[in-house]
Amino acid sequence: MDPKRRIVDGDVVVAGGRIQAVGRTGSRAVARRAGRAAQVVDCTGLVIIPGLVQAHVHLCQTLFRGLADDLKLEDWLARRIWPLEGAHTEESVYWSAMLGAAELLLGGTTAILDMETVRHTDAAFRALEQIGIRATAGKCLMDAPSAPVPLRERTDSALAEATDLCARWHDRADGRLRWCWAPRFVPSCTGPLLRAVSDLAERTGTLIHTHAAETPVELQIVMRETGQDEIAYLDAVGIAGERAVLAHCVWVDPEGIRRLARQRTGVVHCPSSNLKLGSGIAPVPEMLRAGCRVGIGADGAPCNNRLDGFAEMRLAALIQKPRLGPDALPAAQVLELATLGGARVLGLEREIGSVEVGKRADLTVLDLSGPHTQPDSADLVSRIVYSARASDVRHVLVDGQLVVASGRLRTAKLDEIRRQANVSARSLERSLSRGRR
Amino acid sequence: MDPKRRIVDGDVVVAGGRIQAVGRTGSRAVARRAGRAAQVVDCTGLVIIPGLVQAHVHLCQTLFRGLADDLKLEDWLARRIWPLEGAHTEESVYWSAMLGAAELLLGGTTAILDMETVRHTDAAFRALEQIGIRATAGKCLMDAPSAPVPLRERTDSALAEATDLCARWHDRADGRLRWCWAPRFVPSCTGPLLRAVSDLAERTGTLIHTHAAETPVELQIVMRETGQDEIAYLDAVGIAGERAVLAHCVWVDPEGIRRLARQRTGVVHCPSSNLKLGSGIAPVPEMLRAGCRVGIGADGAPCNNRLDGFAEMRLAALIQKPRLGPDALPAAQVLELATLGGARVLGLEREIGSVEVGKRADLTVLDLSGPHTQPDSADLVSRIVYSARASDVRHVLVDGQLVVASGRLRTAKLDEIRRQANVSARSLERSLSRGRR
Repeated sequence: MDPKRRIVDGDVVVAGGRIQAVGRTGSRAVARRAGRAAQVVDCTGLVIIPGLVQAHVHLCQTLFRGLADDLKLEDWLARRIWPLEGAHTEESVYWSAMLGAAELLLGGTTAILDMETVRHTDAAFRALEQIGIRATAGKCLMDAPSAPVPLRERTDSALAEATDLCARWHDRADGRLRWCWAPRFVPSCTGPLLRAVSDLAERTGTLIHTHAAETPVELQIVMRETGQDEIAYLDAVGIAGERAVLAHCVWVDPEGIRRLARQRTGVVHCPSSNLKLGSGIAPVPEMLRAGCRVGIGADGAPCNNRLDGFAEMRLAALIQKPRLGPDALPAAQVLELATLGGARVLGLEREIGSVEVGKRADLTVLDLSGPHTQPDSADLVSRIVYSARASDVRHVLVDGQLVVASGRLRTAKLDEIRRQANVSARSLERSLSRGRR
Repeated sequence: MDPKRRIVDGDVVVAGGRIQAVGRTGSRAVARRAGRAAQVVDCTGLVIIPGLVQAHVHLCQTLFRGLADDLKLEDWLARRIWPLEGAHTEESVYWSAMLGAAELLLGGTTAILDMETVRHTDAAFRALEQIGIRATAGKCLMDAPSAPVPLRERTDSALAEATDLCARWHDRADGRLRWCWAPRFVPSCTGPLLRAVSDLAERTGTLIHTHAAETPVELQIVMRETGQDEIAYLDAVGIAGERAVLAHCVWVDPEGIRRLARQRTGVVHCPSSNLKLGSGIAPVPEMLRAGCRVGIGADGAPCNNRLDGFAEMRLAALIQKPRLGPDALPAAQVLELATLGGARVLGLEREIGSVEVGKRADLTVLDLSGPHTQPDSADLVSRIVYSARASDVRHVLVDGQLVVASGRLRTAKLDEIRRQANVSARSLERSLSRGRR
């Protein structure tokens, strides 16, 4: 994913968390740097790609997987997601983040933009710190009268807690952990909250992470309440431009697309989630043509139900083709969305998104020897986007740290994560069924 | 997948290729039968489902994976698939079938309806016999003036070879291998060929496997040449009813759907292929509501690019939802399409498609302990359809034979398949580039 999209047969040398050399084995650059290597990860016959970037996930929802299927967005939120988020404890938020991040890392995703729930975001950051993924995360903000009662907060106290979390977690772990401001979406936030978030993001040099234009119902609510198209309203309250990341953008018209492109607002395409909730198909090729910055993301586990960058890449390519023709969004463009595209949305394109000297060593190593990725003479990018699966990931490095080796998580015990996550999930389900009675 | 859709915590006893008992460990039925067991496959904590059925694949195309991406059906056929099929040798057809069947078995698919190419179908059957998958397969038939030259045959010689293959391979390997008549699609077949196929299928008690209503271009050609809608024309030449299986059926109108349902013609939904070639989204919920018999299939590797029953199930569910709402085609209905639905299309619903006493022991055993399928308290069918992946398959039995054990193919050497498939693929690509000069 360097500017020339070169595919190099050789070695990658990593030191101090960064890529020091990329080149043929034995070449001068590699030999000079590799001499100092303390550890060799044998990648003979394997394929090294930039770690995948998923620029919209909700790790706090990982424990809700399979508990909210085959429902519309509005019902999905009101009947399942709000009550479950409301029932979260510090413990359950921690294990939900661990479970989700484990799946992400094992599946080759090295960087995420995450929206947590209203409470216990500190616990999520502790999980992210422990497990070693690159994460920009934020506490969800909801203060509008129409926001769900168990999650609604007063504007000032919500912002005070968020400011506190920003101070505690932004730019930690050598920059691997960052803070973002995460107003849920326009219908659950007041204008004053959104404007304050815009100011705070500017002042602290941080991102804003929200949802926009996911369904026609949402657009109607915003139009009714603000008299404006949602993208225009977000712009009016200062949520636009390079600091802003809008997940979904399924229902944007050509004017909205031009506005997003002109202002360089980040867009995150979530193909599985948009299908599963029946939201629609985002006009991604149109957005790319207009010059929008676009990444991809799995969204939360209950609306997907995987957190699988390979599933999202493949689907992102496939779903545009009936609408625009089979040459729409070809494999190479999709691989870019899932790597450099996500890096750009995160404002990290100088740090991650390609295997280049000087960048952070966020690397995913694939074993494409399975029968499902043969013949091996076919186009490598096609094999990665259309054929490979998360289970083909062998090794993963984040910031030069080997977090997955030979398909095993090294930064936490997977057995413990599974056990504790299941204990927490059962406890949340009990809360929910108590709430129903 | 028994009529009550029970989920049983217990054992499955298999003997003579069939399921002898299903029930709780230590229950009378199980204990009496299990006493005679020669081999125990420990499935503690695992999930046993009916082997997946894919009722439309082209194993001869497995070697073309990644060689024909991002093209329209008509270009995809003319520029890549026809020339590649034309270049096939006995050797390459054999290894193409082995590679595809290996991927299918390792991914939990135990039964297929397969369309081979015009030549060397005997080699494909030898591969299917060796590797142990349940397969109904046929030589492709093309005799129309508009059929591609390297693959066009004289009607009588094509039918003579097919009749010979039917005699040699139908109902072999204890019924595991069966023959089908495989006219490619209406535009490449003459009326006399199609009528003869209908008679031959009736006389030999075998299936007819063809494509129909995949693209609007195809419908226009058929309308121009026959003056009829394609489904009606197929009916007129005798390709309808329980013996007929039509892959795709993307572009069928309500009248066509009623006709398919009334005549009990088999339909095979190929969601990935229909997206990748830009064909569209088949009206599967409408067909099911009308009473059609519907299965699913991955189609060929170059238009997918996986042969993955789990990817097809998940996508079949997801793609209907933007059109019909998030409750369209829920998980349980999709699991039925991929098991009993496929069995019905194959005319094998008394033999396979569910884990029931008396049926053939075609079983897929899943390990759902991965982080991507947690929490384990969620609905099991949702976990299988929306979260599980082909790599979660641990063991696979076909006809009671353990063909995959602990994720490893036991009936053939995967290393050899990979090596030979790659040699053959390179040789086909060389033929193709020679042809271009």
